[in-house]
Amino acid sequence: MDILDIIGKKRDKKELTREEIHYFIKHYVDGEIKDYQASALLMAIYLNGMNDLEISYLTDEMKNSGDTLDLSDIPGIKVDKHSTGGVGDKVSLVLGPMVASLGAKLAKMSGRGLGHTGGTLDKLESIPGCRIDLSEEEFKKQVREIGIAIIGQNEELDPADKKLYALRDVTGTVASIPLIASSIMSKKLASGADSILLDVKFGSGAFMKNMKDARKLAVTMVNIGKNLGKDVKAEVTDMDQPLGYAVGNNLEVKEVIDTLHGHGPKDLTELCLNSGSIMLVQAKIFNNENDAKIALKENIQNGKAFEKFVEFISRQGGDKEYLYHPEKFEVASNIIELYSKKAGYVNRIDALTIGESSMKLGGGRETLDDIIDMSAGIVLNKKIGDKVEKGELIATLYTNKDNTEEIEKNVIEAFDIKKTFKPNKFEGILIE
Amino acid sequence: MDILDIIGKKRDKKELTREEIHYFIKHYVDGEIKDYQASALLMAIYLNGMNDLEISYLTDEMKNSGDTLDLSDIPGIKVDKHSTGGVGDKVSLVLGPMVASLGAKLAKMSGRGLGHTGGTLDKLESIPGCRIDLSEEEFKKQVREIGIAIIGQNEELDPADKKLYALRDVTGTVASIPLIASSIMSKKLASGADSILLDVKFGSGAFMKNMKDARKLAVTMVNIGKNLGKDVKAEVTDMDQPLGYAVGNNLEVKEVIDTLHGHGPKDLTELCLNSGSIMLVQAKIFNNENDAKIALKENIQNGKAFEKFVEFISRQGGDKEYLYHPEKFEVASNIIELYSKKAGYVNRIDALTIGESSMKLGGGRETLDDIIDMSAGIVLNKKIGDKVEKGELIATLYTNKDNTEEIEKNVIEAFDIKKTFKPNKFEGILIE
Repeated sequence: MDILDIIGKKRDKKELTREEIHYFIKHYVDGEIKDYQASALLMAIYLNGMNDLEISYLTDEMKNSGDTLDLSDIPGIKVDKHSTGGVGDKVSLVLGPMVASLGAKLAKMSGRGLGHTGGTLDKLESIPGCRIDLSEEEFKKQVREIGIAIIGQNEELDPADKKLYALRDVTGTVASIPLIASSIMSKKLASGADSILLDVKFGSGAFMKNMKDARKLAVTMVNIGKNLGKDVKAEVTDMDQPLGYAVGNNLEVKEVIDTLHGHGPKDLTELCLNSGSIMLVQAKIFNNENDAKIALKENIQNGKAFEKFVEFISRQGGDKEYLYHPEKFEVASNIIELYSKKAGYVNRIDALTIGESSMKLGGGRETLDDIIDMSAGIVLNKKIGDKVEKGELIATLYTNKDNTEEIEKNVIEAFDIKKTFKPNKFEGILIE
Repeated sequence: MDILDIIGKKRDKKELTREEIHYFIKHYVDGEIKDYQASALLMAIYLNGMNDLEISYLTDEMKNSGDTLDLSDIPGIKVDKHSTGGVGDKVSLVLGPMVASLGAKLAKMSGRGLGHTGGTLDKLESIPGCRIDLSEEEFKKQVREIGIAIIGQNEELDPADKKLYALRDVTGTVASIPLIASSIMSKKLASGADSILLDVKFGSGAFMKNMKDARKLAVTMVNIGKNLGKDVKAEVTDMDQPLGYAVGNNLEVKEVIDTLHGHGPKDLTELCLNSGSIMLVQAKIFNNENDAKIALKENIQNGKAFEKFVEFISRQGGDKEYLYHPEKFEVASNIIELYSKKAGYVNRIDALTIGESSMKLGGGRETLDDIIDMSAGIVLNKKIGDKVEKGELIATLYTNKDNTEEIEKNVIEAFDIKKTFKPNKFEGILIE
């Protein structure tokens, strides 16, 4: 076998065999196949596509390129969830304790934020003392004992994805559904869960810009699950505004606490209830989503979900006093209130602008080496559908920086305020 | 400007601007743009194509990436010719002296053979003493004084092509018309001629496998000439058998001598007369090709073409005694005659098989480091249209190697002998 033959086949729109995909991944990781050959193949895949079987083989070979986590010594069905990323997306921190409080086992590896999107690891680290670097043994023990642990991605997992992702980033081959799907799914499969729930977001703040592409990605990933014998479901959800009100690390943790107490933002709460009920059915703890949703609501009402959150955070070293007394969280020195320049209804809040503005206020990182200001970010005071008077408060910036005029202007402009408002009927799609 | 934007545009089927192409070539040559980025762009060009204007810009930027030869101090129109390569293609060595004997100025840079195709430089070096490494001053002086010089490609010319060609070779992006055309034309334009005649061959032994692609390549290169203000014409010719009878370096030189004496193979002689008459019109020495052809035939009859060949070779250090007495050329120790296994008419002689067999006999190089046996090769005893009896001699192998059974078998099988024969009506196309 020869990499030139493999490139030539994909270039000529032919289907690659499992053996060819195996050869490519093995020898790209071991360095025999060069970056310039891999990038030519990636561009050919970008332009000529891959069918579901090729994508499944690619995913499986990437998964097998390094260590894989064996969770079989944890009893029960291990569930996992993954969001393709968005602005204000703190779902894992709400949903995880909710489902764990009903007996699900969530052994989750998360990522860091980059650019306009936040990362669950950063949000966890905004809680003083909270560790995300548990050893594999600690991680599994915690899941076994309390049903939930969230840590950073093991560096030995899926080296093919690390190498390919870095290459795609500098060769214009990021936005390819076969490559996105295999990247996400190979990492998820390497982390050993039995069932996976995906949240594929679309909109300006999301990776996929429109519903059609998001749906295609969701279907592709669910089909990978089918081909590789894993229970994979995918929700397609929109991101025509940030999720919840808070964007920025400790601001979002405070919103997580509110939500687990039952008074969080409506959109965040509903998404967590929907996703949670699907996961509980995947975990075979409930037979149907309705029953699961009722139980989830109960565990919010009775405080069990919040107590699971406290247990989870404390177990990872986090100071639970912050969870019981969120006013203890550091507050940024510079709090700027932004007021609407017109009256009307909020039709859209550009999530990309809000995410980038939060990053510029110190709440995110532009490059992987940047240090995050855990207290920085944006709290929206209005959301889609809300009526706004001229001069009414629409958003509040939290920062330790000065000279924020440009950012203020952008955040105000991110609010699309019109005389009328027609609700978006899209309520998400479940692909299974 | 950013290479990612440029890759993205071509990936998305958009037209690149002159500035973008300039940026790519400049920074690929200076190393700022990496091989893995260039290969992604090459694959995008391979799959999405380029229009004539983009190809012309690419050619011009490649040409300008290094030194260019200035032939303006040689009086008259400097002509050049280029064949896309084939098996038994010794045209330059016949045609060059023919047109130079009538006053044309041919300042030609040639290449070496690789794989199944031979190279003019190797054929020249099979003449004892003949140099191909003249300095630029020697080269120009010789053209000025005797009208012809053929040397190796100056290493400082067209570094972009060298780098891109090496990359295409290992990334499955060789067979792209925009990339082939710009590679050929940038080198030709950098060597400074005023007019260029291209011979685009198709068939099993040629770079282009069919007439349609060959024609497309020819039209593309002629259009580059138009866009860049150069007189470029292109012949499209077939290679459903090797050109002439001889394949292999000193075997071909002997055939060159025969042809310049007026008793060479019909196909080779006709091609040289056709190409030569076009070049003499390009050189404005004749007004029309008919008159030019009559003059060329005359100069073969009266020996002037052969004497120009002797002058040219002697001037480059070659021993003219070999030209006057070709029996002096080294003859391989092992001469193997091959006989037909059936009776009929030769319908086709697979040029790729003949070229590869000659290489394996020692007459060519598999990699650029291999050393050529100048006496090795194949002489065909029959050509297309010839009647063959069972047991009649069809080809003779010349080699200093043993164990040639496999090669013998392949050469015999390269002859497609059928009961009937229908002549191929294709007589070449001229694109201008």
